[in-house]
Amino acid sequence: MKYLIPLAAGLVASGAAAQDPAPAAGNAEIVKPAPVASPAPEAIETSPDGSIAVRVETDGDGRVSYSVTRRGQVIVAPSRLGFLFTDQRKLDRNTRIAAVTHAKSDTSWTQPWGEWRTIRDNHKEMRVRLMETSALARSYDVVFRVQDDGVGFRYEFPQVAAGTVTNVADELTEFNFGSNGTAWWKPAFLWNREEYLYNRTPLSAVGTAASPMTVKLDGGTHVVVHEAALVDYAGMALRHTTANGFQATLTPGSGAPRVVKTGPWTTPWRTIIVADDAPGLYMSHLMLNLNEPNKLGDVSWVKPGKFNGVWWNMIKGQWSWARGPQHGATTAHVKQYIDFAAVNNIQGVLVEGWNVGWDGDWFGNGNDMNFSQPTADFDAAELQRYAKSKKVYIIGHHETGGSASHYENQFDSAFKYAADHGIPTVKTGYVTDAGQIERVDADGSKHREWHEGQWMSNHYLNVLKAAAKYHVSIDTHEPIKGTGLQRTYPNWVAREGSRGMEYNSWPGKNPPEHEANLVFTRMLEGPMDFTPGVLSLTGQNDSPIESTIAKQLALYVVLYSPVVMAADTPENYAKYPGPMKFIRDVPTDWEDTRVLNGEVGDYVTIARKVRGGRDWFLGSVTDENARTLTVDLDFLDAGRSYVAEVYRDGPNADYKTDARHSIAIEQKRVRKGDRLTLALAPGGGQAIRFRAR
Amino acid sequence: MKYLIPLAAGLVASGAAAQDPAPAAGNAEIVKPAPVASPAPEAIETSPDGSIAVRVETDGDGRVSYSVTRRGQVIVAPSRLGFLFTDQRKLDRNTRIAAVTHAKSDTSWTQPWGEWRTIRDNHKEMRVRLMETSALARSYDVVFRVQDDGVGFRYEFPQVAAGTVTNVADELTEFNFGSNGTAWWKPAFLWNREEYLYNRTPLSAVGTAASPMTVKLDGGTHVVVHEAALVDYAGMALRHTTANGFQATLTPGSGAPRVVKTGPWTTPWRTIIVADDAPGLYMSHLMLNLNEPNKLGDVSWVKPGKFNGVWWNMIKGQWSWARGPQHGATTAHVKQYIDFAAVNNIQGVLVEGWNVGWDGDWFGNGNDMNFSQPTADFDAAELQRYAKSKKVYIIGHHETGGSASHYENQFDSAFKYAADHGIPTVKTGYVTDAGQIERVDADGSKHREWHEGQWMSNHYLNVLKAAAKYHVSIDTHEPIKGTGLQRTYPNWVAREGSRGMEYNSWPGKNPPEHEANLVFTRMLEGPMDFTPGVLSLTGQNDSPIESTIAKQLALYVVLYSPVVMAADTPENYAKYPGPMKFIRDVPTDWEDTRVLNGEVGDYVTIARKVRGGRDWFLGSVTDENARTLTVDLDFLDAGRSYVAEVYRDGPNADYKTDARHSIAIEQKRVRKGDRLTLALAPGGGQAIRFRAR
Repeated sequence: MKYLIPLAAGLVASGAAAQDPAPAAGNAEIVKPAPVASPAPEAIETSPDGSIAVRVETDGDGRVSYSVTRRGQVIVAPSRLGFLFTDQRKLDRNTRIAAVTHAKSDTSWTQPWGEWRTIRDNHKEMRVRLMETSALARSYDVVFRVQDDGVGFRYEFPQVAAGTVTNVADELTEFNFGSNGTAWWKPAFLWNREEYLYNRTPLSAVGTAASPMTVKLDGGTHVVVHEAALVDYAGMALRHTTANGFQATLTPGSGAPRVVKTGPWTTPWRTIIVADDAPGLYMSHLMLNLNEPNKLGDVSWVKPGKFNGVWWNMIKGQWSWARGPQHGATTAHVKQYIDFAAVNNIQGVLVEGWNVGWDGDWFGNGNDMNFSQPTADFDAAELQRYAKSKKVYIIGHHETGGSASHYENQFDSAFKYAADHGIPTVKTGYVTDAGQIERVDADGSKHREWHEGQWMSNHYLNVLKAAAKYHVSIDTHEPIKGTGLQRTYPNWVAREGSRGMEYNSWPGKNPPEHEANLVFTRMLEGPMDFTPGVLSLTGQNDSPIESTIAKQLALYVVLYSPVVMAADTPENYAKYPGPMKFIRDVPTDWEDTRVLNGEVGDYVTIARKVRGGRDWFLGSVTDENARTLTVDLDFLDAGRSYVAEVYRDGPNADYKTDARHSIAIEQKRVRKGDRLTLALAPGGGQAIRFRAR
Repeated sequence: MKYLIPLAAGLVASGAAAQDPAPAAGNAEIVKPAPVASPAPEAIETSPDGSIAVRVETDGDGRVSYSVTRRGQVIVAPSRLGFLFTDQRKLDRNTRIAAVTHAKSDTSWTQPWGEWRTIRDNHKEMRVRLMETSALARSYDVVFRVQDDGVGFRYEFPQVAAGTVTNVADELTEFNFGSNGTAWWKPAFLWNREEYLYNRTPLSAVGTAASPMTVKLDGGTHVVVHEAALVDYAGMALRHTTANGFQATLTPGSGAPRVVKTGPWTTPWRTIIVADDAPGLYMSHLMLNLNEPNKLGDVSWVKPGKFNGVWWNMIKGQWSWARGPQHGATTAHVKQYIDFAAVNNIQGVLVEGWNVGWDGDWFGNGNDMNFSQPTADFDAAELQRYAKSKKVYIIGHHETGGSASHYENQFDSAFKYAADHGIPTVKTGYVTDAGQIERVDADGSKHREWHEGQWMSNHYLNVLKAAAKYHVSIDTHEPIKGTGLQRTYPNWVAREGSRGMEYNSWPGKNPPEHEANLVFTRMLEGPMDFTPGVLSLTGQNDSPIESTIAKQLALYVVLYSPVVMAADTPENYAKYPGPMKFIRDVPTDWEDTRVLNGEVGDYVTIARKVRGGRDWFLGSVTDENARTLTVDLDFLDAGRSYVAEVYRDGPNADYKTDARHSIAIEQKRVRKGDRLTLALAPGGGQAIRFRAR
């Protein structure tokens, strides 16, 4: 026997909409004569320019849903809100809108480093107070921030008493897209820590997706679903439940509740960026605006810059992290890299395998790692002196092998060691399968955590806080997803969290479309340590990389990070003096950024103006198809003349042939208003420095 | 930096196979020079007739996979095996095949009730002993049972020491189908306890599916993935991970591990039924053969039979479960139903709302339910006497509202009450959202469990064991999935676990294709209490049911259960004396069953021979399309003549019009070898009794 439950669209099973004669009630239930559903009360907020509207309503059964429209188009159809708990009744039905408050704000703030110096935060806010009509009478708020480029919302539970523990089993937030479309997505909860190629499938064929998920709705509107300010909470994935609908599902932890909160609590912001096209998605500042301001105060010690490193030879299998005849991190090798950096406007030298702990099987088992004890053949003091004499600094490396507690126990010694040795930035690593982070509690009990679970969301922030005490910045590999926290902790300079250049050394190389996918997917999370610039275009066993040289240069503009590697070896760079000039010239910190064109997974062109300078830089990349793009140079300063130093694909350039090395370098005079034609080879690209005269 | 991990097909993200230039290595990882992968050792077993082959192999990284082929066609491509734990390292890599043993068996056994009296169990078995090559050196077995109609396999951990606790976070078993195809499936983990319409989508568009999932592979081979003998374990759902691939994911519980086992342990059997066509799926005995034999001994007290009940009037909203002027379960009402049953060869009368506890909001909150205290207007002693005098028994009802612990506390009083009142069968209910079962521990702590989680898998069996002590049989509503346990506990006579007739009373009625879907999906789980026979073809507010009268009769043969309801009211049945005769005549226990034809979701025809008798019965149903089917009467006994009592759709019969009531009843002489033509109306059906002369 059953109870009247008016249908919630999000609960029509996938495909049902197409299959059921009566999908609108396909899963309704009944028992007693239906209670008469009073006209659903609702709350509405619009964006400052009125283009986007958010509507919150309750149905006859007291289930709460929100929906999003843009210029009348349904972006998100009514989608339910709610929670499952491990020890109390579901937060779902019998809820009413008890109060609604509206506010608006239009301010600007400054990034200490980034793609834009100044970020405008112009939004309207609606706070909806919800209250259960049942005896439980639980109450909570849902706060919506509506910008002209999207919507963010989060749950807030201000009424929970101090000390009261809330055990969240899962979050029931739905995202029911207004139509079918094409989705670019990566699977969630698989072993490889977000390091998957992006799938391009119909929205209806998505599995369980990690966020961000990028969608081009039928009709062309682009939408990205993600989250902002993931703090002390589990990362959200998107479980496919209906034809075009998804339900949030939180990353598990080792505990029964996926999230445990004490006292009043809030969730991260759930974000929905909406734009006419792919470039519009990239230009959104929604995620950054939803994060808290800088909590570290003066961060002049954070050092944007380029670096090379004792690394690619390991990735190619020629040097080893472990000690022995192949050991990479020797004093001699590092000095060679310092010499190279000093003469190539490269500020840092990364060294991996410099410390004790690499000799065993460290995969998923980093308990031998010592982050303040170098190997005997690595003379830290001498290298610190030598680097300083060349105006170069060492970039440190902490590979935990997933033993996070073991790392936390060494925080102070590890970061003091870095500070004492003039190391401003440390690259961290968590090489173990997703779900296999080792957590050891005070009582000695061991637990297996997920990279994106609540416990690790705290661990990754603990690293930042511990490092900040010593003025050290962090470049996290095998990280948690990026949710804009670099605004709050500006020493979080970069993350990996996707397939970087290293995959081009191995079987299963990144395809030519990869970077054009990344710009409109992974890069929306924030800076990525992709490690571009392998001009030799060869990986392990001299296997060819599916790129042209010009594309390798373009990546320095297209894929943003304040800390960017020149990944190839000094020996290889010596063979490419012409292209090397661009790597020498290109900065890593920007005043302004413009995405001039782009289609997800096909191509993209980005122009950026150097922070505190007059030069502009342009990068353009394509997929496996040759492409000719025209760009208007409207972004250049008016009344100023520039020399465009162009690095373009040369005759017959093609990622599939030896002509992948074909590059043409030329100069031309240009000014604002000129139009440039970019001819990109298959798998190719183009890089331009607009040098102000 | 990374580690060499040769690609596991199951980990290529969905769509990747179609998207990646190098999908075969799309997610490979590397670091040190790759260890040379020695030729993978393998173990192979085939079915008795050699048509099906199972292959187990390990890759260069020591990951174990199995695959299934049938007559050379790949049914299941290499699919990985393994586990995640909450407190120890993943069971995944660095594993070798340590030993392989083979066995074969060909036996038969008898069902105390069922669709077939005798079940043949002809299989070959392969036990693969796996051992980790790492320091952990964990060891386990995977046991494969290979029949000519499919494969079952399970994990066994005989080496775990007594008392040692294993905390399973999730199971990593994969099911990577050999090709794309069409899938019929229901979403898992949604609130409505399996009560969803089946979706028909491309295999590539399945979300997270409950099992069983039925698949028609490109080329036509039919496959069903499900499980057998779900005991003290969490129910398995299928998470879509690759284009045609799925990974097991276990139903959560309130505890951190989804499954907790102490000492040596085994999983349920993972089953893969393979057939040329839909009827072949239904004829498989794989699931029953993988369950343990009857543990209850003499079960002559289990009573197959028909029942009517004080129920449909509540479903229609005319009577109430709660006390008051509309109360249905009054002595007078029940006597009326007893009188009707007595003269219509109906053995039982179900009474819902007979007990104290219904007056409040019992949905998800059944703590007021008392299962041994009738309401004042229900004279249990008098009704027991009256029923007995009419050779009819009462069927009891226990609605828990999801308060499972509250129910367990009353087991003895509840089932003693039933036994004392001559009640051989009890219908149970768990009306609360999935994930909202209330469990109260000895310390008073409350937890929220899932209908298909480990704790509830034990609860549902606890009900059976407690009931068996009092010789009471159970018809579980809002149940756990069916996995063949009725073989082991023959007092588990039926389950709901899908959308039954009740949905035809409400908005969002079952579509005409529903029953043709059920036969090849839900019915593969075992008996379903569908409650057919609503000859009035009207639900709440006289809304029309999308069926013809002849189809309602056919359902008594098509949808199997040893306990079958005549769901309509005596008043309504009085209007249909002709069709009523079939309901009077049809038995509920069978000697033999033949599926004569069928396509999933389109149509199906089934013939069954009465247990211990000579008559055969035939039922045929179609979807929204009219259909003419021819069937050869080869199943009839040779040399015997029969009178076919035919109940067919009458002139202009159509589920969409008032002519849904049009039925023609006629008789003809037939014998083995004759051919019958069945003309089915849109949404129609046909029922035949072959009366032996």
